[in-house]
Amino acid sequence: MYSSYDVIVVGAGHAGCEAANAAATMGSKVLLITMNMQTIAQMSCNPAMGGVAKGQIVREVDALGGLSGIISDKSMIQFRMLNRSKGPAMWSPRCQSDRNVFAWEWRKALEENHNVDFWQDTVSEVIVKDNRVKGVKTSLGVEFSAKAVVLTNGTFLNGQMFIGEKVFGGGRTAERSATGLTEQLVHLGFEAGRMKTGTPPRVDGRSLNYALMEEQLGDENPGKFSYTNTPALTKQRSCWITYTNQAVHDELKTGFDKSPMFTGRIKGLGPRYCPSVEDKINRFADKDRHQIFVEPEGWDTVEVYVNGFSTSLPETVQYNALRKIQGFENVRMFRPGYAVEYDFFPPTQLKPTLETQLVQNLFFAGQINGTTGYEEAACQGLMAGINAHRNSHEEAEFTIKRSEGYIGVLIDDLITKGTEEPYRMFTSRAEYRTLLRQDNADLRLTEKGYAIGLASQERYETMLAKREGIAKLTETIRATKVKPEEINTFLESKGSAPLREKGSLYTLLKRPEIDQSDVKGILSSLPDMPNGVGEETIEQTVIEIKYEDYLNREKQNADKLDKWENLSINPTFDYDRLKALSFEGKEKLKRLRPSTIGQASRISGVSPSDVSILLVYMGR
Amino acid sequence: MYSSYDVIVVGAGHAGCEAANAAATMGSKVLLITMNMQTIAQMSCNPAMGGVAKGQIVREVDALGGLSGIISDKSMIQFRMLNRSKGPAMWSPRCQSDRNVFAWEWRKALEENHNVDFWQDTVSEVIVKDNRVKGVKTSLGVEFSAKAVVLTNGTFLNGQMFIGEKVFGGGRTAERSATGLTEQLVHLGFEAGRMKTGTPPRVDGRSLNYALMEEQLGDENPGKFSYTNTPALTKQRSCWITYTNQAVHDELKTGFDKSPMFTGRIKGLGPRYCPSVEDKINRFADKDRHQIFVEPEGWDTVEVYVNGFSTSLPETVQYNALRKIQGFENVRMFRPGYAVEYDFFPPTQLKPTLETQLVQNLFFAGQINGTTGYEEAACQGLMAGINAHRNSHEEAEFTIKRSEGYIGVLIDDLITKGTEEPYRMFTSRAEYRTLLRQDNADLRLTEKGYAIGLASQERYETMLAKREGIAKLTETIRATKVKPEEINTFLESKGSAPLREKGSLYTLLKRPEIDQSDVKGILSSLPDMPNGVGEETIEQTVIEIKYEDYLNREKQNADKLDKWENLSINPTFDYDRLKALSFEGKEKLKRLRPSTIGQASRISGVSPSDVSILLVYMGR
Repeated sequence: MYSSYDVIVVGAGHAGCEAANAAATMGSKVLLITMNMQTIAQMSCNPAMGGVAKGQIVREVDALGGLSGIISDKSMIQFRMLNRSKGPAMWSPRCQSDRNVFAWEWRKALEENHNVDFWQDTVSEVIVKDNRVKGVKTSLGVEFSAKAVVLTNGTFLNGQMFIGEKVFGGGRTAERSATGLTEQLVHLGFEAGRMKTGTPPRVDGRSLNYALMEEQLGDENPGKFSYTNTPALTKQRSCWITYTNQAVHDELKTGFDKSPMFTGRIKGLGPRYCPSVEDKINRFADKDRHQIFVEPEGWDTVEVYVNGFSTSLPETVQYNALRKIQGFENVRMFRPGYAVEYDFFPPTQLKPTLETQLVQNLFFAGQINGTTGYEEAACQGLMAGINAHRNSHEEAEFTIKRSEGYIGVLIDDLITKGTEEPYRMFTSRAEYRTLLRQDNADLRLTEKGYAIGLASQERYETMLAKREGIAKLTETIRATKVKPEEINTFLESKGSAPLREKGSLYTLLKRPEIDQSDVKGILSSLPDMPNGVGEETIEQTVIEIKYEDYLNREKQNADKLDKWENLSINPTFDYDRLKALSFEGKEKLKRLRPSTIGQASRISGVSPSDVSILLVYMGR
Repeated sequence: MYSSYDVIVVGAGHAGCEAANAAATMGSKVLLITMNMQTIAQMSCNPAMGGVAKGQIVREVDALGGLSGIISDKSMIQFRMLNRSKGPAMWSPRCQSDRNVFAWEWRKALEENHNVDFWQDTVSEVIVKDNRVKGVKTSLGVEFSAKAVVLTNGTFLNGQMFIGEKVFGGGRTAERSATGLTEQLVHLGFEAGRMKTGTPPRVDGRSLNYALMEEQLGDENPGKFSYTNTPALTKQRSCWITYTNQAVHDELKTGFDKSPMFTGRIKGLGPRYCPSVEDKINRFADKDRHQIFVEPEGWDTVEVYVNGFSTSLPETVQYNALRKIQGFENVRMFRPGYAVEYDFFPPTQLKPTLETQLVQNLFFAGQINGTTGYEEAACQGLMAGINAHRNSHEEAEFTIKRSEGYIGVLIDDLITKGTEEPYRMFTSRAEYRTLLRQDNADLRLTEKGYAIGLASQERYETMLAKREGIAKLTETIRATKVKPEEINTFLESKGSAPLREKGSLYTLLKRPEIDQSDVKGILSSLPDMPNGVGEETIEQTVIEIKYEDYLNREKQNADKLDKWENLSINPTFDYDRLKALSFEGKEKLKRLRPSTIGQASRISGVSPSDVSILLVYMGR
């Protein structure tokens, strides 16, 4: 009945929105199918974007031409650069969002994309012929055909919500779950599992006593996520910090016998690094308090998100425990916290493009792959959308290396190692994290995004100008000598050894006592600076100079590893022919079918000698 | 576990929002329970407020101190005064609304009311003791106690949605229905029934060819609903008009064998005056076309509401038929239309306060009473909220007479006549409609709203000033004589007989050839006008003068009828003692238990002679 599409995206959360926008921007005719057009890009959990490692991902998505950064900038109510006291690799942008504005900005952006069509319905089946996806069938019985399909079903596949001893079918409060699809995919040969996540209660901000909590202000000079010219915040809302205590823990314990997690009714594993509060007091019994972040839900609502208090205990227990938190003595609860259990598909069944190994042109992105987090979902959606477009136009696959971005780390981790519990990004997962900074995502990725037709000309030119500015500034700094009388007072004030003769500014900048804010002052006082150098260019240049040796070493390491990292292995390679492989190594290789030697090397159970055998066979 | 409340309101649609706000503003501690805090005040059907008779209701709600008028003003994208070419009793304000802004403005307004608490959950039971409501129990198992409870469950009670041969449980797309409550109420002795309503498909505005439709602009000088100082629109969005045709009808007919309405799968009766398109072509087979209003859904969305095309035919039939409409040749559908069947409780089980006869302090408002329409729901919510507050504070009941407002007509119709199909307001239902105009709702009702503590002091004073202005202006006009040379040119231009000698302006204004817009010109050119007379005051004065005799006669009629209209009947009156009553009259009186002679007289089956017998018995 309807026209056929290049790409169908199922689900309109962070993953689905990025996927639809990416494929459509690159020229695909896209159909976005969502259960409810009123809930496109709903933030199901906390009203915030970014954070440690996650902020870097948003910057990377933005650098490639995705929309999460722009939408976050348009909807933020507070911005903070986390870890500013640490090295630049740890700096991580994070914002509080207006939940409604975020959702509406996404919807507007998608509506403005002329290649995106919408259909409100639930997909109950993917249509597959000869191991190739041909379209989808919905619960209304409508069939849509497409060259590629991206599934981003989030927590909706056989979703079940738990509060104490009660269980409700659904993917989000008062919203229905999606049934049938998992069963069909399993029938097609996919392995499925069960995972769990949760969300805290939301409360009435009018009932809190903020005088008893610590205020957490936004940054004085708030930054933003996008490398484009989105405006920065001029006013901000504060968050507040308080703590649980022994009385809170005791109250929570009264509900443990009714906890769906402790009584075994929830079987799926939850996110280890975003545990429920009952999990925290259980696992860290020696800690006498846990931090609670009290986060406003938007510019003009009294609703407040109790970050750190995720729970599926009975709502009466939640309420009684909340009231024992400092500042929450008279709290009124709006909605109880709950846990949700849902189906996922172990991501070792995917190719590096997020295409499934089993069904051609079928892609999975987001929580369906066992990840947690808006940012993790968004970047998978972006990559799946890009590759769905490229597959359906018979273009080569598009991937990002581990040394190029957190996105590369995330996808490589997923497809080679799989995940037993909801996978969340950390800086520690990236072996080249000093290279993968939030400040240089544009320099790393915008050219790639531009080459595939996703990042705009304007975005590309802005990046080129920045790159050129850095080169010029570096040159100027290298050429600049400073006299002792010009700089010594300053150096002494920083406890840094004075110059005895004219010295190179370049060398001076490497001194650890001199930090970035000083550097900006020094530079701006110099007469020979190139004109109109932007803040970001200075920051970038200084980082590159200060950490030059270290960064160079890292780059060399990355290049060396890259040599065989990307050596590809034929997906149909017959491992049985290599008798010398270890038994476990052979089994894993046969099951996971890595597409490169690099991936093979990261599979647990594949030993270095197995890798050598493969390399020898391939003539290296 | 929680504190107890004065009033609990169940459901947060138009009825629930007005009920919660009214009771809370008057001083009750209110708990508003909604299944989903994200969908408070969702417009489930078309994005518009007001219309013929309905616009008058919104004005009345506003005059009493309700919020529907203010929220409508804040969220409108187009305003039109309907029927301006007819007499002032027919003038009816109507606006197109931004669906999202409307919902968010309601939520903000409720959050700003410090007496309103929120709880997200589904009520599964009302707690009743000794025929008196004591609170509610939710599906989470939480119990809340209250002195009064207002049920406004809309289409959610055992809601079932139909599209072609498919049936889904739910009250709105992707939202769950509420089960258990009907069953409990029936167990308590309530009679329940089944009704049906429907909604049209929504489509992609980018796919329409507006050049083939008629543009419907907003008014040049857009008015508004509220008597307060809400701002009027400075820009507006257009609607568009197109028509069905024989090809559309033929296409629709191909789905009749799968129609849930024609095949008998839907048992509930639908709204006669807002029929589905299949109903229209079935019932009015001689009409070769039906009008379609193409309504934008908001300021910044491409989604469009196809008003006049409500349908529950299979989605493929909907799509194929839409494409045969002029301007819709390339239409893309976002969401199919559907029918929804739900439980209601025949409203003859209610008192004039909307309290149930069976259970003290339990109130019903909105679709649960068998009505249709946002405005009908809102005014019931307002009245139920007011009386829930007054009951829980042991204050006298608050009602509005049929001669005082459409609200009075609506409630009196419901409780005395009941309704077999969704009840919608019309001007023809009001015997005193010339008195119940949109222009004088403040003069009729604000004093009453102020007396009960709902309308604000400011609102009351504004009304008093207007009333005084009208009196002064009327006096001035009465005292003003115009000379032939001042007016005759004008009179001739209007085809009105010239004056031969000095004449009274008062008499001149009564001439039918002279309409309101002329009058304003004449008045403003007169030297003796009181200063700073507002537009509304002039309009009101002119109407009162032009229609003086007619309005006076109507007022006398109303007063005369009022005499026995409000003669109360003891609710426990033993009709069996009056042997002379007709058999049918006695049965109906015993079943419906009217609280006044007026109500008794309007019950179908109660004859004039039955009324006389009652009057005789009561000593009249």
